[in-house]
Amino acid sequence: MKITAEELEDFLTEQFPQGARYGALERLGDGWADMKLEVRDEHLRPGGTVSGPALMALADVALYAALLSQIGLVPLAVTSNLNINFLRKPVANCAVIASARMLRVGKAMGVGEVFLRSEGSEAPVAHATISYAIPAER
Amino acid sequence: MKITAEELEDFLTEQFPQGARYGALERLGDGWADMKLEVRDEHLRPGGTVSGPALMALADVALYAALLSQIGLVPLAVTSNLNINFLRKPVANCAVIASARMLRVGKAMGVGEVFLRSEGSEAPVAHATISYAIPAER
Amino acid sequence: MKITAEELEDFLTEQFPQGARYGALERLGDGWADMKLEVRDEHLRPGGTVSGPALMALADVALYAALLSQIGLVPLAVTSNLNINFLRKPVANCAVIASARMLRVGKAMGVGEVFLRSEGSEAPVAHATISYAIPAER
Amino acid sequence: MKITAEELEDFLTEQFPQGARYGALERLGDGWADMKLEVRDEHLRPGGTVSGPALMALADVALYAALLSQIGLVPLAVTSNLNINFLRKPVANCAVIASARMLRVGKAMGVGEVFLRSEGSEAPVAHATISYAIPAER
Repeated sequence: MKITAEELEDFLTEQFPQGARYGALERLGDGWADMKLEVRDEHLRPGGTVSGPALMALADVALYAALLSQIGLVPLAVTSNLNINFLRKPVANCAVIASARMLRVGKAMGVGEVFLRSEGSEAPVAHATISYAIPAER
Repeated sequence: MKITAEELEDFLTEQFPQGARYGALERLGDGWADMKLEVRDEHLRPGGTVSGPALMALADVALYAALLSQIGLVPLAVTSNLNINFLRKPVANCAVIASARMLRVGKAMGVGEVFLRSEGSEAPVAHATISYAIPAER
Repeated sequence: MKITAEELEDFLTEQFPQGARYGALERLGDGWADMKLEVRDEHLRPGGTVSGPALMALADVALYAALLSQIGLVPLAVTSNLNINFLRKPVANCAVIASARMLRVGKAMGVGEVFLRSEGSEAPVAHATISYAIPAER
Repeated sequence: MKITAEELEDFLTEQFPQGARYGALERLGDGWADMKLEVRDEHLRPGGTVSGPALMALADVALYAALLSQIGLVPLAVTSNLNINFLRKPVANCAVIASARMLRVGKAMGVGEVFLRSEGSEAPVAHATISYAIPAER
């Protein structure tokens, strides 16, 4: 693993100055990361459902953390493709947990997948696969 | 067209009480919609780039508007799949325009595509295809 | 499980009369299936690489088998969305194994994921997520 | 445009020795291509529907042709991501036309979209977005 969880947290705070809107790092391993979104009013749609954009943002940041665990703090790595399937309605008033892991990290590209679940539940509320372009000049 | 732009704006305000964070409706037609995101600090990453999550949210809401123009104000229509390719860095300090249109609206599902561009520019910064599940009980 | 492996094989032979071009069923469980593609000349591109279309066809049929294990032999279930990431070059002259499992099977739609690997290797050569529309009139 | 239609046809024949199974080039422009699939028994499923894998293969080859029109005959360009939405049942006993165009061709990656239609019909039967990795060593 090229970085510590602390280094990553500092980096994410710098890269995403909006703070914990997108979720907070829970655990970090070599090629994987768990993040947690404490659901607040800004993430909700009427009826108490977590909005799709809030889930997409969480998935994107969680897999970005997993990628950085393997390539180091490369600020220019950018998302090139994101595909997400929304599977179930999240549990109301419940944090969402993202479990992200890389499937392949090459020189120019990294690809991984993310499962999103309501805390305490096994059934995924969404599943995403995401590709990142890694700049040559690092 | 089943609804007016005014009816849609009221509905979106109700469905997305966070306000104009996701973009504002510019034009609405039968099966298509243009939305505009005035870029604010909350949408930015360091270097002045519009964040991926801000672009995904804009794409999702714009195509949702296009769908509602054809099926009416169905609050239970939900995103089932979203695929987005990020193509170019958006122009700094520049609004982002989403041009959304439906490709197919059936009984149970609607599918469409969205081009995102920096205002005043032709080259797309991102392209998304999105599917919505339409509830049977409407 | 709603069907046996034998019933499924008969059904696939009927639905895909081109025979084993797309792969052969290895194992079938409740919501999952393993299929194997014996690579032949028709699946290859110059240099001995298995072609992308051959891998996509294998993924699609494998997850279709996994779906049918849960909903029974519904001939009208059709693929509505397929997303595939190609991760590594398959091993030359080596069968490809598809491990497919459903993530969610609802009334109107089923979604799952497939890992493709060269036989005897752990690293995935491709990963796909696929959605199927399930007809209401079954 | 870096190549002629004739040069591309020769190249495709070499790269896809299975012949016209995946479709034949109709027209080639700078960043776009039209291909046509004459539907044969091997492309069909019971009921006369063109199979999903046949449509995916056609989309992939058509956009590959569009890419090569801009980067030249680079044999190592490979598909990295393909996303396809199936929208309508193709017309029975009717050729399928693919209209492919690039949205962005960079140094390391090309991204484009493809519409598939039954010949003589306007409504798309499928829509795909595809990314290709372009090798650095060309």
